[in-house]
Amino acid sequence: MTTTARGPVGGRVPHAVWAPLPVGSVTLGTDAGLGAWQAASARATVPHCLDALESSGVLDNLRRLLDEGDPARHDGPYRGFNFADSDAWKTLEAVAWDAGRTGTDPHEDTVRAIVDLARTVQDPTGYLDSHVQGGAAPSGTPYADLRWGHELYVLGHLLQAGIARSRAQGRDDLLTVGRRWADDVVARLVDGEELVCGHPGVETALVELARHTDDPRYLDAAVRMIDLRGHGRLGSGPFEPGYHQDAQPVLASTEVTGHAVRQLYLLAGVTDVYLETGDPAWLTTLERLWEDAYGRRAHVTGGMGSRHKDESFGDPYELPPDRAYAETCAGIASVHWCWRMLLATGQGRYADELERALLNVVAGATSADGTRFFYSNPLHVREGHDGSSEYSPSGRLPWFACACCPPNLARLVASLHHYVATGRQDGTLAVHLYTDADVVLPSAGVAPGTSSARLEIRTRYPDDGTVTVRSVDPWHAPVALRVPGWADPARVRLVVDGEPREAVVVDGYATVVPGPDGVREILLDLPLDVRAVRAHPRVDAVRGCVALVRGPVVHCVEQVDVPGVALEDVVLDLGSPVRVAGPVDGIDAPVTLRARGLARPAVPDAPLYADARDGAEDGDEHAGTDVVVDLVAVPYALWGERGEGAMRVWLPTAGDR
Amino acid sequence: MTTTARGPVGGRVPHAVWAPLPVGSVTLGTDAGLGAWQAASARATVPHCLDALESSGVLDNLRRLLDEGDPARHDGPYRGFNFADSDAWKTLEAVAWDAGRTGTDPHEDTVRAIVDLARTVQDPTGYLDSHVQGGAAPSGTPYADLRWGHELYVLGHLLQAGIARSRAQGRDDLLTVGRRWADDVVARLVDGEELVCGHPGVETALVELARHTDDPRYLDAAVRMIDLRGHGRLGSGPFEPGYHQDAQPVLASTEVTGHAVRQLYLLAGVTDVYLETGDPAWLTTLERLWEDAYGRRAHVTGGMGSRHKDESFGDPYELPPDRAYAETCAGIASVHWCWRMLLATGQGRYADELERALLNVVAGATSADGTRFFYSNPLHVREGHDGSSEYSPSGRLPWFACACCPPNLARLVASLHHYVATGRQDGTLAVHLYTDADVVLPSAGVAPGTSSARLEIRTRYPDDGTVTVRSVDPWHAPVALRVPGWADPARVRLVVDGEPREAVVVDGYATVVPGPDGVREILLDLPLDVRAVRAHPRVDAVRGCVALVRGPVVHCVEQVDVPGVALEDVVLDLGSPVRVAGPVDGIDAPVTLRARGLARPAVPDAPLYADARDGAEDGDEHAGTDVVVDLVAVPYALWGERGEGAMRVWLPTAGDR
Repeated sequence: MTTTARGPVGGRVPHAVWAPLPVGSVTLGTDAGLGAWQAASARATVPHCLDALESSGVLDNLRRLLDEGDPARHDGPYRGFNFADSDAWKTLEAVAWDAGRTGTDPHEDTVRAIVDLARTVQDPTGYLDSHVQGGAAPSGTPYADLRWGHELYVLGHLLQAGIARSRAQGRDDLLTVGRRWADDVVARLVDGEELVCGHPGVETALVELARHTDDPRYLDAAVRMIDLRGHGRLGSGPFEPGYHQDAQPVLASTEVTGHAVRQLYLLAGVTDVYLETGDPAWLTTLERLWEDAYGRRAHVTGGMGSRHKDESFGDPYELPPDRAYAETCAGIASVHWCWRMLLATGQGRYADELERALLNVVAGATSADGTRFFYSNPLHVREGHDGSSEYSPSGRLPWFACACCPPNLARLVASLHHYVATGRQDGTLAVHLYTDADVVLPSAGVAPGTSSARLEIRTRYPDDGTVTVRSVDPWHAPVALRVPGWADPARVRLVVDGEPREAVVVDGYATVVPGPDGVREILLDLPLDVRAVRAHPRVDAVRGCVALVRGPVVHCVEQVDVPGVALEDVVLDLGSPVRVAGPVDGIDAPVTLRARGLARPAVPDAPLYADARDGAEDGDEHAGTDVVVDLVAVPYALWGERGEGAMRVWLPTAGDR
Repeated sequence: MTTTARGPVGGRVPHAVWAPLPVGSVTLGTDAGLGAWQAASARATVPHCLDALESSGVLDNLRRLLDEGDPARHDGPYRGFNFADSDAWKTLEAVAWDAGRTGTDPHEDTVRAIVDLARTVQDPTGYLDSHVQGGAAPSGTPYADLRWGHELYVLGHLLQAGIARSRAQGRDDLLTVGRRWADDVVARLVDGEELVCGHPGVETALVELARHTDDPRYLDAAVRMIDLRGHGRLGSGPFEPGYHQDAQPVLASTEVTGHAVRQLYLLAGVTDVYLETGDPAWLTTLERLWEDAYGRRAHVTGGMGSRHKDESFGDPYELPPDRAYAETCAGIASVHWCWRMLLATGQGRYADELERALLNVVAGATSADGTRFFYSNPLHVREGHDGSSEYSPSGRLPWFACACCPPNLARLVASLHHYVATGRQDGTLAVHLYTDADVVLPSAGVAPGTSSARLEIRTRYPDDGTVTVRSVDPWHAPVALRVPGWADPARVRLVVDGEPREAVVVDGYATVVPGPDGVREILLDLPLDVRAVRAHPRVDAVRGCVALVRGPVVHCVEQVDVPGVALEDVVLDLGSPVRVAGPVDGIDAPVTLRARGLARPAVPDAPLYADARDGAEDGDEHAGTDVVVDLVAVPYALWGERGEGAMRVWLPTAGDR
């Protein structure tokens, strides 16, 4: 369930506490918030990705497989990484959700041409990987290099695209292509072939395919693939088994390891398996690994993965802001996993982390114009930064040699409306993400005794903390509203049809149970204080620093806002208040923050290392008098929109250095 | 001049302020200090490396090139990285210096067999690279892949081995093999072929060959190779041109970039070219780049290279202790470059940095028993560290897939006696490194008016700060003794033949000019205070921390010395004195340090991020009462000798977090 199951509320995911709503239940407003993001992505990012499928060679890689003499055949060499096919499937998933959501299909001709191409070049067995089929893989034959081949990863994305097109648009053409391949994989597994992919991702897709087709063989295949991990089948070498999550069986794992995207995709798949099977051993393992990941290895922006080297989680508490890898796809994977953990447990903390990732690291990965992207999402860019690598550039880039991130953003954003609310067997509706949205539930989706209904969620969140939920007709089922962990429960205001109510927060949600007459309007007011956040003392990399966070939004300071001094020489005066302020030029955010900074320019040619002098907290490295600086902090998601320059999320505080 | 020129003092390096002494001038005492290290390396490390040449396939790679039917021919596949030949040449360089120094040649049969093998398989053109000749290189033919081929890098190591064997043992067999290849390279360059290597290293060797053979064509070849850089000839791709020092011409460079070992080897070569040509533009560039490297990008241990990713220098002041790459070979390259800068300028600061690297990062790379090594040299190992990668293991390892470091250590250590002292045209002798040593100068090597003489340097430095320099016969030439930059000049004691003298320190040296009767004994006493060193405020990664340094020796604390508490929870009480103490079990060092620490265990399940609460310096993350801990700090070079566990060079100080 990348996004949603198709059945009635609570009816299709046997072990979910919260179950996805039926497709089409939620429509986002496009003025602001998630809906505006979604509209911008459909308008700019999706066409950009479709163009890139041509310019980067992804479609030509498939056209190389056409028969000689076919006028569409492409004769050049294979281009890009071996899993480049997945760029096409991710993009088609985005197109499908957008088309289903808007009822328009401007890219349908393109999509059909790609589906036709895929159907034409697909091997009679169902196999469909242009890298291997086109002779570009050193291994030569299908599944000969499970470790690096990425073929099952590609299958996973093909399946998700096919399912999305089927669900959102009712068109099964692409699903049929994907299912043909999946059936061959299932048959091979049944025959005892040990198919397991170096890059997880297919597991969630197989579970979703099982849900969508009511065919449990696909679920069995996902379980089998998970069971196959951790026995050394993926081999070793310069990359250790942990890189591929093959060092230990999942159930024996106590820590997240290796490549962050792979680990998080795998755990999303395992959660899907739990949601279908209900085996408590899975959930115990998932909760343990989640605590490790989010309690010891997550950046304050929700970015995951500390190391550029191997794109990996680092050691516990190894969270460098400047070299945060925090791959965009890892942020997306974090949303996937947290969503499934939320469904499995009903605990708001999973939604908190989902929101942290979504509104910070994921949102920041795309430029305001929707056509430039970050692959890696640092929390600190130094003065003098060398931006020559596309993995640590000085600004967003239009495309990448490894282009996994942009179409992954497109498919997530196109499906954001699925993450807003869920339901439960007893008819309770839960709202997880606050943004302008209309929620329409068919009568079949509502608990006995309640009627079909439409709820309007209206808010300027996260700029403003007030959320109203209105119903034209009285609403009779309970409504659970998420109260994020950062909100002081004592200061949360809840007003139901004009009457203040105590907000009793259980598992991260305040639930309004309507009386006999139902309810028409709920107002939730969340205190959006500015918090100066410190990291756990073991996070050495940001010792003596704070991050300014308002509600769920992490802020950063940029060199462009402190002309005349080097941002790298500025410390935050924590003794002065941090104020909420209006917009600044060039940043499309109604709210920014203002704080008092002190510039402490280093003495020219100050030595790299000098005596601390008898325990004084300050050396004599800085030039005496501090200069007061008006600091502007803008939402992290909008950094880098005003040209290149230093940027910091973590601000040293006066007295700490 | 990896180590020494052959001619009389000051006579062979035209633009050196200090010139190397003739081979054989300096003999180290083997009880302690550099001589003990040298003896241990000859006894354990060199045989270990020779064994590894067999077990890792290096010699078999050459034996694959023998004619079919030759009983010594090896038929297996090529093994190891494409530059594995260099492991053999480095090891043979070490063997040569050891043999020359000790007058014994226990490995001579082995060496002759390898030389015979090399001569036999060498191509008629002189080319000798078993990876390319053996058909293992995808590029197929010589120099077809200058970027990754490493062939000229291999040539450089072959030449250095041949020169060492010629100089130290008077045997020219290996030199003849290397020179044959070098002659072909020279001819190709003369013919206009643009030969430049993705991995520098050959430049120093070519200059040394020019010195050793009095043939300036080799110097011209080195200059040409340096001039060829920075014009994009090495191509681009996933690695940017800066990785190979090909983004800019050397003379236009303002920052060190890319792979640290490559950059430092290149700059050592450029310094050699300056030493021969005297072109001031080279020196200006070198000084600028040196300031960048040592003023903004060097770890306090002398380790160079901040990033595992691409083994590269990072941005300015990006110096993470936990993820310090600090490759052993980069420490060695730093010794090479600083030595040449010292010769070129006579400035003691270059010797200071040479010593910092030598006694900390380089010394720490080998285990006490001489047979295990670090490739990367972190300044912090976390509790819970995943040591599964050989580039960030939890302890030293016997060998590596890429085994550049161990034989590089062996060849440096085997030549350490060359770094102790230099001379000058006016007869001045300069002592740069303090260790037990006898310096014998032939009459030809001494300035007119002075006789042949022998100086005995005796000291327990760096454990003790007293150094005596004695001469049996009165010594008539000036003696310059290095006063390191960390020593307070006002507290340096200088006693000449029993008479206290003021130590006037110029360019890092206190020079004793003998009177008409000469001098017999000089006593230098350096104040070895324990310093709590802070980093420049822009070194974010160690904000609020100090490193304990005594004289040139950086110390660290290890988990084994703080039983009962987690080292990661300990802060240093800077208000209490740090005391000098005796040895601890398992550490072969007469001096360790003792300090007062405070253990601040984190609350179990303390959140990763929490509010800083109104500007208080401390959150409530730790469990209230501090527990006093007796901290033991041992020399960094000896860390990891007592099993695995957390280690820190940089200690958080009380109040800073």
